[in-house]
Amino acid sequence: MFRNRMPRYEILSADAIEVLDRGWRRIVSEIGVQFAKPEAVELFAKAGQRTDGEVVFLDPEFVLEQVALAPREFDVQARNPANSVHIGGDQMVFSGVYGPPFVREGALRREATMSDFRRFAMLSQSFSELDSAGGVICEPNDAPLDSRHLDMIYALQTLTDKIYMGNVVSGPNALDTIAMTEILFGGREAIETTPATISLINCNSPLRWDDRMLDAQFEYSRARQPVVLTPFLLMGAMSPVTIPAALVQQLAEALSGIALSQLISPGCPIIFGSFLSNIDMQSGSPTFGTPESAIGLLCTGQLARHFGLPFRSGGCLTSSQVPDAQAGYEALMTLLPTFLAGTNFVMHAAGWLEGGLVSGYEKFIVDIELLKMMRVEFTPLEIDEESLAFGAHTEVGHGGHFLGAEHTMERFRTCFYRPILSSSKNFERWNRDGALDTAARASEICQKTLDNYELPPLDEAIRAELED
Amino acid sequence: MFRNRMPRYEILSADAIEVLDRGWRRIVSEIGVQFAKPEAVELFAKAGQRTDGEVVFLDPEFVLEQVALAPREFDVQARNPANSVHIGGDQMVFSGVYGPPFVREGALRREATMSDFRRFAMLSQSFSELDSAGGVICEPNDAPLDSRHLDMIYALQTLTDKIYMGNVVSGPNALDTIAMTEILFGGREAIETTPATISLINCNSPLRWDDRMLDAQFEYSRARQPVVLTPFLLMGAMSPVTIPAALVQQLAEALSGIALSQLISPGCPIIFGSFLSNIDMQSGSPTFGTPESAIGLLCTGQLARHFGLPFRSGGCLTSSQVPDAQAGYEALMTLLPTFLAGTNFVMHAAGWLEGGLVSGYEKFIVDIELLKMMRVEFTPLEIDEESLAFGAHTEVGHGGHFLGAEHTMERFRTCFYRPILSSSKNFERWNRDGALDTAARASEICQKTLDNYELPPLDEAIRAELED
Repeated sequence: MFRNRMPRYEILSADAIEVLDRGWRRIVSEIGVQFAKPEAVELFAKAGQRTDGEVVFLDPEFVLEQVALAPREFDVQARNPANSVHIGGDQMVFSGVYGPPFVREGALRREATMSDFRRFAMLSQSFSELDSAGGVICEPNDAPLDSRHLDMIYALQTLTDKIYMGNVVSGPNALDTIAMTEILFGGREAIETTPATISLINCNSPLRWDDRMLDAQFEYSRARQPVVLTPFLLMGAMSPVTIPAALVQQLAEALSGIALSQLISPGCPIIFGSFLSNIDMQSGSPTFGTPESAIGLLCTGQLARHFGLPFRSGGCLTSSQVPDAQAGYEALMTLLPTFLAGTNFVMHAAGWLEGGLVSGYEKFIVDIELLKMMRVEFTPLEIDEESLAFGAHTEVGHGGHFLGAEHTMERFRTCFYRPILSSSKNFERWNRDGALDTAARASEICQKTLDNYELPPLDEAIRAELED
Repeated sequence: MFRNRMPRYEILSADAIEVLDRGWRRIVSEIGVQFAKPEAVELFAKAGQRTDGEVVFLDPEFVLEQVALAPREFDVQARNPANSVHIGGDQMVFSGVYGPPFVREGALRREATMSDFRRFAMLSQSFSELDSAGGVICEPNDAPLDSRHLDMIYALQTLTDKIYMGNVVSGPNALDTIAMTEILFGGREAIETTPATISLINCNSPLRWDDRMLDAQFEYSRARQPVVLTPFLLMGAMSPVTIPAALVQQLAEALSGIALSQLISPGCPIIFGSFLSNIDMQSGSPTFGTPESAIGLLCTGQLARHFGLPFRSGGCLTSSQVPDAQAGYEALMTLLPTFLAGTNFVMHAAGWLEGGLVSGYEKFIVDIELLKMMRVEFTPLEIDEESLAFGAHTEVGHGGHFLGAEHTMERFRTCFYRPILSSSKNFERWNRDGALDTAARASEICQKTLDNYELPPLDEAIRAELED
């Protein structure tokens, strides 16, 4: 968890926000939102909203009343209390990549396995920059489908002592997640009082919430576990090609999903979700780390604050196939705006590669380095007389150097960020050391981290019960 | 040239600025600034400032009076009027890498030659994102020392029709630059009225302006050609290790240099310079693209505006030895704050590699891509009813897609940034196309650009005179 006390970078004028505000109101009331679950439609109907089949036409004022029931901030507990987090306000919580069916390790790209899943969980446990390994860090294709979600949750619960994300493939899977969480945290009441999982509920954009996702949402909201209600917008495919249009669609979808959660269980915690990028209009491929997605991210933060909601966005996204220059700049192109916007919950913060199809080991380390750098960059400067080091100038004078100055000697260990991955070796030294590029060095760090991994302690009775 | 109409990201409070303001005043008045040129010391003495040998103790109010004489904004003309630029205000002007003795082309790192210099000039001419090829794009080690500066200026004048930077190795070199500029622009008066070169005058930090740089500054300021008065601060070596200390030192140095320029030639154009990063405290190596340098950059912009001065900073800096992930993220780690700060004159905007020791061909293309992306990202959104694309939602409905929507069809060619380098190809296609990483693709683009280079037209009489 990181407290971002730097200013937010806000680019929307009050007028612009007003236009966008009118936009989502018009969509929910005139076009309506489809909920592919009769129980959801009934809840809206009972609350006085007009429905037509699966489509609900929402009164914007009703939506805002529901949204107002959701807490602005809340805690999520980890089994190691030191790793519990707070969602909302100035806090930023970081979670690993989510969803890829493939992994890349060096030159090899292959189907992900349960062993990969475990190794990524171990990596996530090893770096304090991540508050969570995430949920589906990669899709373990070698695990049987009916019990795969149990294997994943068990790995997250035992290999890490951080918060984790719940399974959302179906209602029963969600119930399994909740049951296992109850075991780990000592019963239903313990996790209803302070939630212990966060789950990702994606909209089937445009304007449709699908049955299986809704099934999962119902279970999690009933159990008072937060869901991240996330419009899935690749502009040009799931939304119009103009950013303002995507923003109002995002509001319509997220706010309608949040309204539903409050009908299911008034006051249950939610996170305003955003996953907003665009496609390449020539190939139809999704693209990440684009200027358009960065602009969308900054606007999303401002809009979430406008509605008083904790929000999810950003990460270290890239379209690149390998952890190369493009992967580096696209990841930062997403992550820097993530910090400028003060994003509260950041999925895909480490490991994302190839448009989200691949969990990359080396890319994971690149992203950890970026997260470390951002934490330093977004820590406010302390500016007082002492920080001006006038005495050092008196000591050094004109044309000298500060290497041996007293002011330097007192601070040299901690004064600057010390990279774990970036190299500033001079060419001769770098060459002598094997002329390793960043990806090669990341591979070494990855292996070393896994070698040094320590299993966090867990009560054996609980472990046995989870294994059952 | 790019007009940055986005908000500035400002992180210094009014209180903090006051503390920093007191800081530089104390340095210039109590420690003083060394000017290693008797003529400079005399000018200060005549203006009533206390001197002791080469050290001038400056009255801060006097410094501010001098600084107030410098224009806040000014034009610099290119021989192709379409490429003339405006320095100051919302404008951002971009110039290529400056100074490296080496080049990197693919796997080969070698001493730079005049042929490299010309090829980089041709690349700079080919991309509209650069307003200038720069000055010493690389140090052509095969050109004879006594005429090398003439060869470089001639190449900049003929291979590009953009503004260029003057030579600053000595007073005579500066005079040669000015003489060649007079030939190109039709005489002294033409370039005194509207300057045609910008020259980089570095401080030998801490607090010392060296004789040869001052000789050059005297010539350029007399000829009313702008100089970028740049404290050269690698925190830990040339300045104390705390950012606020570096900021006040930067103010003391830059403002004292600007005061001198106004004594040489009242009202002559200047640019407040900043080159601010830090060293690795373990190895002593300079490091770039660091969080500390990003913070320094943001503060520098705010301080330059506080004093009403156009400023130089930023670029696409990196310590990386090769154009890999680190090169990508460190370059953007510098360039994004460069835009957030609204930097008026950006040196090292393309080609910088290995801490500035290497001009990289592939890195040049990476940086052009970043400059292109930043221009899109820092173009304000147009938010009006039409941009909300309500009609597209009516057309597409729930769970559909916008690929064929009328709103999409009308805009698909121009709606998103189209990368020249970044790839979003799917894995199979990317593999089939040779599995080229970003550096390999950059190499191809580089070669293609050079193959398609067109020499800008120039009056043969002028060319002959320049050749003389």
